[in-house]
Amino acid sequence: MSTTENPAPDLPPPMCVAPGITGIALAQCLFNPRSVALIGASDDASKTAGRPLQYLRKAGFAGNIYPVNSRRTHVQGERAWPSIASLPEVPEHVYVLAPTESVQDAVLECGQAGVKVVTILASGFAETGPAGMALEQSLLAIARQYQMRIVGPSSLGVVNPHNGSMLTANAAFAEPDFPRGKLFVASQSGSMIGALVSRGKAKGVGFAGLVSVGGEVDLSVGEICAATLDDDSIEGYLLFLESLRHAAALRAFAAEAARRGKPVIAYKLGRSPAAAAMTATHTGALAGEDDVADAFLRDSGIVRVKFLESLLECFPLAKRIPLSKPARPWQIGVVTTTGGGAAMVIDELGTRELVVQTPSETTMAKVRAAGIGAVAGPVLDLTLAGAKYDIMKAALDAYLAAPEFDLVVAVVGSSARFAPQLAVKPIIDSAHHAKPLVAMLVPEATEANLALTSAGVPCFRTPEACGDSIAATLGRRAYLLAANAPAQPTAAAADMLSEARAYEILAQVGLPHAPFMLAELNGPDDVAIAVPFEYPVAVKVCSNQIAHKTDMGGVVLNVGDSKEMQRAIQTLRDNLTRAELAPAVLSDCRVLIQAMRKGLAEVLIGYRVDPQAGPLVLLAAGGIWTEIARDRSIRLAPIDLPTAFEMISEVKMLRTLQGARGKPRGDIAALAQAICDLSSLAVRADLAVQEAEINPLMVMAEGAGVVAVDALVWKRCRSE
Amino acid sequence: MSTTENPAPDLPPPMCVAPGITGIALAQCLFNPRSVALIGASDDASKTAGRPLQYLRKAGFAGNIYPVNSRRTHVQGERAWPSIASLPEVPEHVYVLAPTESVQDAVLECGQAGVKVVTILASGFAETGPAGMALEQSLLAIARQYQMRIVGPSSLGVVNPHNGSMLTANAAFAEPDFPRGKLFVASQSGSMIGALVSRGKAKGVGFAGLVSVGGEVDLSVGEICAATLDDDSIEGYLLFLESLRHAAALRAFAAEAARRGKPVIAYKLGRSPAAAAMTATHTGALAGEDDVADAFLRDSGIVRVKFLESLLECFPLAKRIPLSKPARPWQIGVVTTTGGGAAMVIDELGTRELVVQTPSETTMAKVRAAGIGAVAGPVLDLTLAGAKYDIMKAALDAYLAAPEFDLVVAVVGSSARFAPQLAVKPIIDSAHHAKPLVAMLVPEATEANLALTSAGVPCFRTPEACGDSIAATLGRRAYLLAANAPAQPTAAAADMLSEARAYEILAQVGLPHAPFMLAELNGPDDVAIAVPFEYPVAVKVCSNQIAHKTDMGGVVLNVGDSKEMQRAIQTLRDNLTRAELAPAVLSDCRVLIQAMRKGLAEVLIGYRVDPQAGPLVLLAAGGIWTEIARDRSIRLAPIDLPTAFEMISEVKMLRTLQGARGKPRGDIAALAQAICDLSSLAVRADLAVQEAEINPLMVMAEGAGVVAVDALVWKRCRSE
Repeated sequence: MSTTENPAPDLPPPMCVAPGITGIALAQCLFNPRSVALIGASDDASKTAGRPLQYLRKAGFAGNIYPVNSRRTHVQGERAWPSIASLPEVPEHVYVLAPTESVQDAVLECGQAGVKVVTILASGFAETGPAGMALEQSLLAIARQYQMRIVGPSSLGVVNPHNGSMLTANAAFAEPDFPRGKLFVASQSGSMIGALVSRGKAKGVGFAGLVSVGGEVDLSVGEICAATLDDDSIEGYLLFLESLRHAAALRAFAAEAARRGKPVIAYKLGRSPAAAAMTATHTGALAGEDDVADAFLRDSGIVRVKFLESLLECFPLAKRIPLSKPARPWQIGVVTTTGGGAAMVIDELGTRELVVQTPSETTMAKVRAAGIGAVAGPVLDLTLAGAKYDIMKAALDAYLAAPEFDLVVAVVGSSARFAPQLAVKPIIDSAHHAKPLVAMLVPEATEANLALTSAGVPCFRTPEACGDSIAATLGRRAYLLAANAPAQPTAAAADMLSEARAYEILAQVGLPHAPFMLAELNGPDDVAIAVPFEYPVAVKVCSNQIAHKTDMGGVVLNVGDSKEMQRAIQTLRDNLTRAELAPAVLSDCRVLIQAMRKGLAEVLIGYRVDPQAGPLVLLAAGGIWTEIARDRSIRLAPIDLPTAFEMISEVKMLRTLQGARGKPRGDIAALAQAICDLSSLAVRADLAVQEAEINPLMVMAEGAGVVAVDALVWKRCRSE
Repeated sequence: MSTTENPAPDLPPPMCVAPGITGIALAQCLFNPRSVALIGASDDASKTAGRPLQYLRKAGFAGNIYPVNSRRTHVQGERAWPSIASLPEVPEHVYVLAPTESVQDAVLECGQAGVKVVTILASGFAETGPAGMALEQSLLAIARQYQMRIVGPSSLGVVNPHNGSMLTANAAFAEPDFPRGKLFVASQSGSMIGALVSRGKAKGVGFAGLVSVGGEVDLSVGEICAATLDDDSIEGYLLFLESLRHAAALRAFAAEAARRGKPVIAYKLGRSPAAAAMTATHTGALAGEDDVADAFLRDSGIVRVKFLESLLECFPLAKRIPLSKPARPWQIGVVTTTGGGAAMVIDELGTRELVVQTPSETTMAKVRAAGIGAVAGPVLDLTLAGAKYDIMKAALDAYLAAPEFDLVVAVVGSSARFAPQLAVKPIIDSAHHAKPLVAMLVPEATEANLALTSAGVPCFRTPEACGDSIAATLGRRAYLLAANAPAQPTAAAADMLSEARAYEILAQVGLPHAPFMLAELNGPDDVAIAVPFEYPVAVKVCSNQIAHKTDMGGVVLNVGDSKEMQRAIQTLRDNLTRAELAPAVLSDCRVLIQAMRKGLAEVLIGYRVDPQAGPLVLLAAGGIWTEIARDRSIRLAPIDLPTAFEMISEVKMLRTLQGARGKPRGDIAALAQAICDLSSLAVRADLAVQEAEINPLMVMAEGAGVVAVDALVWKRCRSE
């Protein structure tokens, strides 16, 4: 690493090699190919490599199908071709079913023949180690050379049920009566596409396409989904993610999907360290921090659900809820025919800090005017009135018209199972109201669930999926749509700056620090240092080579006068000597003398360019607690002031700043401004900051501001 | 409240009036009556009051059924009787279907006729306010007078499907093909009994009995369930609880159920404040703190699940897991045919801090010896080997025999749906291994789910219910079985003691405090107080009438010498004067002078006799954080040392005491001992402590102990 502290010049964009077809042309080859070839198609339809041919035929795929098998003249009763070159046409999409060791040859053959899209079934690449990773890179090199696109390796397939293009080896697709519909699934787990189809089928959810993206050596979730955006038969996207990778493409897709009002719903693994480790084993990719991924997904406008069932049930709700920031926190009204059932839903909403709104007097007067005797309370409980069409309809009408509710949840008890005309039909009949209406059925009531789903009513089988889906949908953010997204700096090698230089850089975006001066480490002992601010002071080693100065004894606090100052500097000298630093490092060390500041709270604010998520800003309570409780808030940078206030409200430990228990209120406005300022590094290409951390930032009493008393900054290296 | 501080004498037990039949005689009348009467039976079978007669007839109830209706000679084509007195025999169980205003007369009529058990359908009692509460109490008075037992009011019924005793007005019971089985349901929500039946039916779960307990004016969940314990057809209990009430009976039942190996699984509402408020509205009962209820349920050996689906899916697992304390934390092995599916399960286990154990080399050698090529990692992933019977069976055999696993989870992918003989059958064939084996099916696979359930294999439809059920089952505790449960003091009126008296009481159970002395508030100003310990000291007002002395300026810290002491005492005098206390209170105030102690951490330890849960001990990080994050651990008192260590490990904030980041370790052993000592108040009837709180208790460095620097104690009042 170089040690320069000068601003890096603007870098030229990396050389762009057109990777091959993109957009609608890509979607055409992937999902609507006029001809497909199956390299390594097996004669045995029950074998993995035999399945795609069988599925294509069963599904009545209308294009040309070319089984390619160099060792057989026929497979499954059809003519087999010896090679891609021998085919009468260049197939638009080739599925390589050959074993790992033959994949490279097959891909090369496709490239040479001018094939535009190849999907690779075999696994055994990057996830097996360095040799596999090199092999995978060689596939990519071939693809780039011939401007060919790759799905996989380890792709269980690419499926378009609408035209029978069932290019998949997933055993689950043997089943008849495929549930066709309007949702598109992209999954980093191959086996899950089958599971989602069967679970969707049981819920009346249908699919317009599915892709198992496998190792994503070339085409990633984001790029594949983006290519399908012009397809009007697709109304929404379900993503099953193992980790956050190829995030730039995902973000670009999500932004465009948001603009078109096509909801994107994601289930992402890796919330626990154990699962993150498992994903790393399984795919060869590092998992990253889940809360960074969570911030990325939500800021990208993606509905990140936590429950598998939510992934399948959430779409109709996400479709109804706009992605713009609401004028007030969403207020939810609950109407029920069962007290116990509603209480479950309220519990699930309440534990997610969603507001269940009590009906106004005006609303209750309307309810009573409709002849409904109902107990007052946080929900409208129709148990006494009974589950009858007119009662439920009148109650829903009153709730949907009430200004105090932004979203209405109808919880239906046993009648949903044996008499859906009583309390389920009024929900269906109210489905097209401007205000979103959600149903949760307490009994097992498959038919009512299907009827609601078919009518487009968001409908949940469990209180847990109901709460999760509502929270996830309301929790996505319109970050990407808020402004012209800034050009994203990418992660790069970086140099640490000294604390003094760090303050200079941070001051350029407006961040205040406690006053300091620099002195020589080996200055004359008999000359008192003139300190231009009051004692006591902090005395610290100042070096661009020492990140953890406290750990090596490089900080002395509460230095009370000039005599103690001399002793403190001697202590630093002794500790630096003990640390056995390189002579060049030692000779560069200086002494930073800083005024001491004590705030009402110490917080950590940080900025970094994440390799996947891009520029991030982070707020956490200071000290060890941050590590123990992960009590922190993260956003894509830059942010605006309202977002900064939102972040402050999300860090539990900082609730003490609100003046709880008679304590003085902290300067929350100044803290919010500081978070914004730090986040603005994302649009300051001139400063070229890769990472910055102020820890602690002292939050003073209301009106007294905030002040940094330590800071670390890493600057991107100048390109040589 | 009296102000005495002398020990209260042992109180005589409250006068016991035999409430009527109990135990097996009660169960007989409730669930196996030879004759039933339906007061207010309607002629219209579709009306609520018409349903029980219809259900009893449809179910082929073999006993005598007497519709009682003073206004009709016939109902639903059967002879109706004008009154209970007019019946040819005294019915064993009467269901009162009459409206609220007629209930009292009906109950009185039953009592006069010698009826032993009455169930009341009508609502409109305690939940409506003081008048309703009085009416409810009058029902109880009648019952006590005639030694008659009551279920309800607001009971939707008492059902025994095995003999057709369908005494219920729940519309859900109109359905044919009732799922009979071995589980007994007791629900504080009437509508939920219907929902549980339909949801259970879809899962192949059957029921031996159900009761909607309603308002529990007499018979509560605990007593009703306890009465059925001798019924061998009942193997487990599912409880749907709105709040913790009648906890003593619940605890007694749970202890006896545990002794007989009959699992008790509970879903309890009120995790969020909003739902707690809703429950209060709905039932008229206060909800209490959910974490107190949680500690109570778990210490009672009850499996407290958080998901509705878990309530129905958890029983086979709870049946397999012993309630004794394990020698080590449970180590879970995972075998899978789908990487993505297993990762979901691992996420759910990991976020609940459950240990997913990596297989040992010995186990992996066995797996390889069986010809299984599997990627090493935290789970045994058979994706490459393929879903085949022999492979799955060999993998399960290796895992079930491996000493590193205490519980094995098999996650099955798509084959579970279309070819259960491949990977589901080997699970069924391994079901009777001594080690518990759990299945989680990733696709929609109803038939495989039913087959596994019917074979007694714990089987989950979602990764969430799988993780929740395992965590809940492993999280119940054998507290009640550990020792002869101490005689439980009950909550009572209590007097606060002064801080000085509080230390004396706490010293009697071994709790150390910082040394202190008492001085006069209005002593002579010119005589220096001789302090028998070092300055600085804390100077505090000492009174048995002032609980929040800091709030009213009754504490001065860091008093450095005798001169400052005089000033401090003057400050106390001034502040007390400003507080305008009653003269008697003021004249009783003294000054407590205490040595200052600074620990590595400040914690709060508390003891109280909860009106429902009984004696509790609580540990929390000190300060405002406790209130914000609810970062606390609660147990039924008294506890033993290992439990105290467990509690310490549960409070996140106290992880700093483990010596993280080079900080000194705190004296955790002394803290654990202090928690035990405080909890022993539960068995010190002589001390008669109702509530005690040490806040803060200073935790010193390892070996240096703990020391109380403030304490509050409330003592039960002497009976007059």
